[in-house]
Amino acid sequence: MARIVMKFGGTSVADLDRIRSVAARVKRQVALGDEVAVVVSAMSGVTNQLVGYCQSLSALHDAREYDTVVSTGEQVTSGLVALALQAIGVEARSWQGWQIPLLTDDAHGKARIRSIEGATLVARMQAGQVPVVAGFQGLGPDHRVTTLGRGGSDTSAVALAAAVRADRCDIYTDVDGVYTTDPRIVSRARKLDRIAYEEMLELASVGAKVLQTRSVELAMKERVRVQVLSSFGDDAPPEEGRLPGTLVVDEDEIVEQEIVAGIAYSRDEAKITVRRVPDRPGVAAAVFGPLADAHVNVDMIVQSTGADGTTDMTFTTGKSDLARAIQVLEAARGVIQYGEMLTDADVAKISVVGVGMRSHTGVANTMFRTLSDRSINIQVISTSEIKVSVLIAAEYTELAVRALHSAYRLDVA
Amino acid sequence: MARIVMKFGGTSVADLDRIRSVAARVKRQVALGDEVAVVVSAMSGVTNQLVGYCQSLSALHDAREYDTVVSTGEQVTSGLVALALQAIGVEARSWQGWQIPLLTDDAHGKARIRSIEGATLVARMQAGQVPVVAGFQGLGPDHRVTTLGRGGSDTSAVALAAAVRADRCDIYTDVDGVYTTDPRIVSRARKLDRIAYEEMLELASVGAKVLQTRSVELAMKERVRVQVLSSFGDDAPPEEGRLPGTLVVDEDEIVEQEIVAGIAYSRDEAKITVRRVPDRPGVAAAVFGPLADAHVNVDMIVQSTGADGTTDMTFTTGKSDLARAIQVLEAARGVIQYGEMLTDADVAKISVVGVGMRSHTGVANTMFRTLSDRSINIQVISTSEIKVSVLIAAEYTELAVRALHSAYRLDVA
Repeated sequence: MARIVMKFGGTSVADLDRIRSVAARVKRQVALGDEVAVVVSAMSGVTNQLVGYCQSLSALHDAREYDTVVSTGEQVTSGLVALALQAIGVEARSWQGWQIPLLTDDAHGKARIRSIEGATLVARMQAGQVPVVAGFQGLGPDHRVTTLGRGGSDTSAVALAAAVRADRCDIYTDVDGVYTTDPRIVSRARKLDRIAYEEMLELASVGAKVLQTRSVELAMKERVRVQVLSSFGDDAPPEEGRLPGTLVVDEDEIVEQEIVAGIAYSRDEAKITVRRVPDRPGVAAAVFGPLADAHVNVDMIVQSTGADGTTDMTFTTGKSDLARAIQVLEAARGVIQYGEMLTDADVAKISVVGVGMRSHTGVANTMFRTLSDRSINIQVISTSEIKVSVLIAAEYTELAVRALHSAYRLDVA
Repeated sequence: MARIVMKFGGTSVADLDRIRSVAARVKRQVALGDEVAVVVSAMSGVTNQLVGYCQSLSALHDAREYDTVVSTGEQVTSGLVALALQAIGVEARSWQGWQIPLLTDDAHGKARIRSIEGATLVARMQAGQVPVVAGFQGLGPDHRVTTLGRGGSDTSAVALAAAVRADRCDIYTDVDGVYTTDPRIVSRARKLDRIAYEEMLELASVGAKVLQTRSVELAMKERVRVQVLSSFGDDAPPEEGRLPGTLVVDEDEIVEQEIVAGIAYSRDEAKITVRRVPDRPGVAAAVFGPLADAHVNVDMIVQSTGADGTTDMTFTTGKSDLARAIQVLEAARGVIQYGEMLTDADVAKISVVGVGMRSHTGVANTMFRTLSDRSINIQVISTSEIKVSVLIAAEYTELAVRALHSAYRLDVA
């Protein structure tokens, strides 16, 4: 017997048929003897409609009223899933954030969870009732409904799993797990049985958007074992001792550790180079201070110093920040005193991710050699403990991902 | 300065344009210097959709989950109206039943209001903020959302008006007031400036469905002055000292009392006669006991005793109850020992209503003579202190209503 939190996203509860199928899946889990709690999103499309209403009435809408309106999507699903469970003989009861209560701070529209009262829900689960919790919402200190920001239902589920000390938090999505890379690019991409929290965070932040980043951070902090799996997969119960999806866990739980877990890529990159900046102390601050003030997110940074007493600074931002970054730097030209500014939005970032890198050398070198063998020029390099990223021309994205996937022996046999 | 509760039904908040127009109307009321609270229904169509979801998932659905789902319609409108008010510079805040709290009993799906905490709302109103209250919903003793039954938002509004000691409760509908009779039948029907609670109850229960009956009962009990008026009417503020709709008030407030307030009709009637029942004590109980057990609503009843020691019992029910009533009486034939049963669903009930009848004689006689002059046969008569009703053949409905409307001098000049 285990205690499981099952979370179903918008496409998994898109209509009444899908809701019935969610109920059937929950019933199978209950039939295994498990204690189960469910967390649900709004039916797909509903949240967008409600957000549209709010934006239409007031461009700068009051976040408290926005939360009142938008949180109803999850409330509806929670009631409907409870009804669908009861209809097939599973005791169930819906729970809104204010009823649990799931307390948050007062940052309406993007609130953070402060505490969840788990005792009542645990008692219900132990009595054989399935709590169906409306995701994405909580109760603020002002006694009003708060929402956790888009995708917040993943975070609700992980936080709930921590509060009820669940053995696992199963996140049902429209993919059947986390892959070594994008299967649309590499047909021999392999589904990972397990992935470490840190790896999942790096993969998510470079474009493999399976789980909301906040939910992974929370899972890592609270040591909640998260499984990503498909709500559209076959309906047979998983084989004994084997899970159908990808388990996101502490790296200690990954016995046969691969050095590299996966290859990620992002085309949402733009490169900016300011050239011939007088090389003096404080030059980096002069460049990046105004960008930070303008809320431009800067990612990779390299600086190279020439022999003539000037230096070149190259960095990347998201494509949507490029225009603002250019504007900021042009305005600051007098202070920075750069010679010229070059920009390039036709770039991609390729990342090799794996906690095994910590104890293995040569990972970066394999990457550089593999790209060099394909005559792919590396424009920028950045590294962390468990990741090596390079910036290349966007047209080489697929070639680079495929070559690296093979080089690190990630191809499925 | 007055304190006003303004209630807007589903068609008044049907879409974002209508919601903006509701906000503009509220703003005009606030500009008069009044303290205003608003009560809203779900956007038209929304409740039916949500009810449909619940019925589709489970024919015998759990009323607690039904309430969780269905109450979201009003929650959405409350948030949107608050946003629309803020957008035009009116301070506003939405309120759900559980936040006020508006406490009810635990009869989910048809709960009755127990108490409303008015102090907080009054304080907000006095501080210049407009509370926008989600109608139709409250909080049950089980700490779950309850709903008040269809049309319950009228009851929410009246109860709120009582709780905040409002000077008036304005119910905005798709008609501009209460008429002396149905204007579709009598083009010279006249809008009433004032009508007594008791008259409104009689008119509502015989087919003039402008306000939910429960809300009128509550208004009478709590002495809440209710105005019925159109949300589609012209947008000019009412003339000084004159209200645009119909005021439902205590009869003492009606200075120029008419003897007859209006003529109502209902075609939803069926007549049943059981003939030649042995005339002995307990025969009425033998007939109506089994009908009550089968939840058949019986309205008019007449009994006539013949010379042969038998009696005929005639009564009416709603058309939808006719088949069940026949079934019940056939099953009880051995006990009742009636000679034969006759039924007729082709009948209509015409009622003359007015509190002035209490102090005036001849009202019933005018009715009988008027119908007789048109050769309309009266099948059943029933009377109360403020109402005379007759059952006639349905084909004479319009003729009878028009003739009576003229006879009581209700035609507009």
